[in-house]
Amino acid sequence: MSETDNVKALVFDVFGTVVDWRSSLIADCTAFGKARGITADWTALVDAWRQAYMPSMDVVRHHPERGFVKLDTLHRQSLDVLVAKFGINGLSDDDLHHLTLGWHRLHPWADSVSGLTRLKTKYVIGPLSNGNVALLTNMAKFAGLPWDLIMSAELFEHYKPDPQAYLGAAALLNLKPAEVMMVAAHNSDLDAAQKFGLKTAFVPRITEYGPHQNRDFKAEGAWDVVAADFNDLARRMGC
Amino acid sequence: MSETDNVKALVFDVFGTVVDWRSSLIADCTAFGKARGITADWTALVDAWRQAYMPSMDVVRHHPERGFVKLDTLHRQSLDVLVAKFGINGLSDDDLHHLTLGWHRLHPWADSVSGLTRLKTKYVIGPLSNGNVALLTNMAKFAGLPWDLIMSAELFEHYKPDPQAYLGAAALLNLKPAEVMMVAAHNSDLDAAQKFGLKTAFVPRITEYGPHQNRDFKAEGAWDVVAADFNDLARRMGC
Repeated sequence: MSETDNVKALVFDVFGTVVDWRSSLIADCTAFGKARGITADWTALVDAWRQAYMPSMDVVRHHPERGFVKLDTLHRQSLDVLVAKFGINGLSDDDLHHLTLGWHRLHPWADSVSGLTRLKTKYVIGPLSNGNVALLTNMAKFAGLPWDLIMSAELFEHYKPDPQAYLGAAALLNLKPAEVMMVAAHNSDLDAAQKFGLKTAFVPRITEYGPHQNRDFKAEGAWDVVAADFNDLARRMGC
Repeated sequence: MSETDNVKALVFDVFGTVVDWRSSLIADCTAFGKARGITADWTALVDAWRQAYMPSMDVVRHHPERGFVKLDTLHRQSLDVLVAKFGINGLSDDDLHHLTLGWHRLHPWADSVSGLTRLKTKYVIGPLSNGNVALLTNMAKFAGLPWDLIMSAELFEHYKPDPQAYLGAAALLNLKPAEVMMVAAHNSDLDAAQKFGLKTAFVPRITEYGPHQNRDFKAEGAWDVVAADFNDLARRMGC
């Protein structure tokens, strides 16, 4: 009997693991700029936007008295600061809203949909992402992701890697942590999941950050599964 | 422009509206009894089990200091009382667990899957049920319900008809209440949804309670849509 025979559900990191946020957003912002006649270094904007991600969640984590703030709101707050910093002028409130919703319009990696479709035949599958519920729901419809349910940090009012996110997902599914497998392209996410008792699967996405990729080229922990992509993961999980 | 043109998401009552809990559970319990050689009036048990549903949620509603209790737990507590009352002996803890999970194995009405599949092409669709997340997730896999996401009283720690359930669903979807339509076979559910600003659709399920049906034979409020079944609802909603 293998370590993973008791797994009943697979939960997925989304940004970078399931979808290629960087290429998608650069294309989305560039198309917007062309249509509106606004010139900017959209690639640099997207990279800076993602750099603001971790610090923006840390503010929520360190100020629980302010209440939980969903990722759409953090994305918009970061964008407001960055368009000023990058000197991008002439954006209306509607424009900024449209750009923020670019995070709902991310394209999957080539193997994501086929691999998830295979895994869904045997397991409950869902995101376990810091993206908010509406973001993940709209993204699933846009990208054709066949989730069984949407699980988000928003439901637990705690961003990963807080324990409430991982343990909350298992509790919602009526499962023990060891019956849930976290799938991610980020060793740090799996490190937390493993610490709280979940099984772990690493799938490398070595072009996630484009030329700025400086980590997660390979598995760096004792993960239960290391797979080349989602179809390889499906095969290894008996689908 | 119609009243329902701004609707972006349809949320569904599940027990009775999407699935035929009574026939499904009677068949499930009867099959269990035959396999285990246990004779009982399974039909009467199922009817009594459902009668315990509203009072069991009322206890949770009136004792917030005890914390929220998910429906699987309430179902099991009610079953424990009823098997004693009905004099059904010889059931192990595993047997009682199996019977309780019968609520995860409910069959859809004949039009449910085809109607939902059509509605999903244009709208976000999800349950908004007093069933807990695991129950609704497992049921969707068992019955082939193509939900975009699972919404449950469990997420809001409030059973319908508390306002937190209806308003919580709209908030999770980043929508205004009037952009969400509640679909139910129960006038009382729509009454609450309408009071809190949601749009409403009634679909009659006049055999839900079998010979004991004594209400909800027809629409009794000023609902935005009254449809014969889910395919008629899809047609009326432009799908």
